[in-house]
Amino acid sequence: MIDLYYWPGIPGRGEFVRLALEAKNVSYRDVAMEAGDDGMDRLVADMERPRDTAPFAPPYVVADGMTIAQVANILLWLGETQGLAPADMAGRLWVNQCQLTIADMVAEAHDAHHPISPGAYYEEQKDEAKRRAADFRTARMPKFLDWFEQALERRGPWLAGADWSYADTSLFQLIEGLRFAFPKRMATLESGLPRLIALHDAVAALPGIAAYLASDRRQPFGEGIFRHYLELDGAD
Amino acid sequence: MIDLYYWPGIPGRGEFVRLALEAKNVSYRDVAMEAGDDGMDRLVADMERPRDTAPFAPPYVVADGMTIAQVANILLWLGETQGLAPADMAGRLWVNQCQLTIADMVAEAHDAHHPISPGAYYEEQKDEAKRRAADFRTARMPKFLDWFEQALERRGPWLAGADWSYADTSLFQLIEGLRFAFPKRMATLESGLPRLIALHDAVAALPGIAAYLASDRRQPFGEGIFRHYLELDGAD
Repeated sequence: MIDLYYWPGIPGRGEFVRLALEAKNVSYRDVAMEAGDDGMDRLVADMERPRDTAPFAPPYVVADGMTIAQVANILLWLGETQGLAPADMAGRLWVNQCQLTIADMVAEAHDAHHPISPGAYYEEQKDEAKRRAADFRTARMPKFLDWFEQALERRGPWLAGADWSYADTSLFQLIEGLRFAFPKRMATLESGLPRLIALHDAVAALPGIAAYLASDRRQPFGEGIFRHYLELDGAD
Repeated sequence: MIDLYYWPGIPGRGEFVRLALEAKNVSYRDVAMEAGDDGMDRLVADMERPRDTAPFAPPYVVADGMTIAQVANILLWLGETQGLAPADMAGRLWVNQCQLTIADMVAEAHDAHHPISPGAYYEEQKDEAKRRAADFRTARMPKFLDWFEQALERRGPWLAGADWSYADTSLFQLIEGLRFAFPKRMATLESGLPRLIALHDAVAALPGIAAYLASDRRQPFGEGIFRHYLELDGAD
């Protein structure tokens, strides 16, 4: 059994793990979510448990006697043990390379609304967020998204070629998050990203993902990594 | 042969790869550095070469017919192929988890002086940098560094226990960088981090690292990830 631990009530970084598991129909428990009102207490109590490989932060999974943290690390492990990535060295490293690049963009999407302090409110860093979000929209979004588009042009239809991997489900979630947070900017950019949008739609159509998206396990975006503030979005 | 490509003239993220290679006496070419005045041209020309697994950004290595990018991914590969990490699944994932947490802190150390835009000058974001660096010093530095200290308390003397790994050479470089960028803050914090400082010193004493640090291949910090601005440092 795989136990997933993540902050209850937001998709956040836990969603990248959930999507990989759901796409492959891997059985898992979403511990804090399934605990309902006690979810946060369950998570905090578990995080305080002494363990050899204590996570710096959620998400983490507990399975096979191990505690594994960091999204790209959890996915690397799922890739190897659940067939969610190519088995050969070159393919495995490429999928990890893609996932780490997705993680970099996710961190920058977060910092677009929290450029000063992850521990302070948005309202305390709103002016700085306007400047950072403008740079993210105009410079960083095209740079990252064009890189993925070009990778798909060389290797598509999936990031690793003929078969989907966890990097594809992660890229789907990145697009979903960017559309939520920056709808005007994405409307401008998407016409130049046909392969990326085709990949997004193909992930949504995977049977495991389609069933998940239609279920009540799929959580809406809100106050997590991806946030929609009107003043941070723009067509360019 | 392993060819390393990175921006010439700064240690930057390339240094995490160099240190792992040097610690184990792995033979490699530092292509842009060895090209002298042509270094930047060599790097840019190579980056423009069409390839299946084109990097988003340096550093990357070319070896065994592969191009491998993202520091944690390069180190994962070196760990597996050069004996720079435990061979068992749990140990390998833990070392990767540590490396990814180091990478998170490195990114935050960079953003302490560039909180608005990686493409703009420091002077254009100096006011915001003062706010972000204050948060980094007071909240983030203790949180990250205490996490490493506690990991060493549970498992030391090295991060993975009895033998050193690439996560240890990376942690050494993180301490070096923080001491350069935030000397006053580190002077305050280090008394509470005895295991971390002992690990730093033990890495410096590894024969391969000692020889590297004494060589002209070791570059000083300057205008890279870790930067020393008097106004961003402070004892607390």
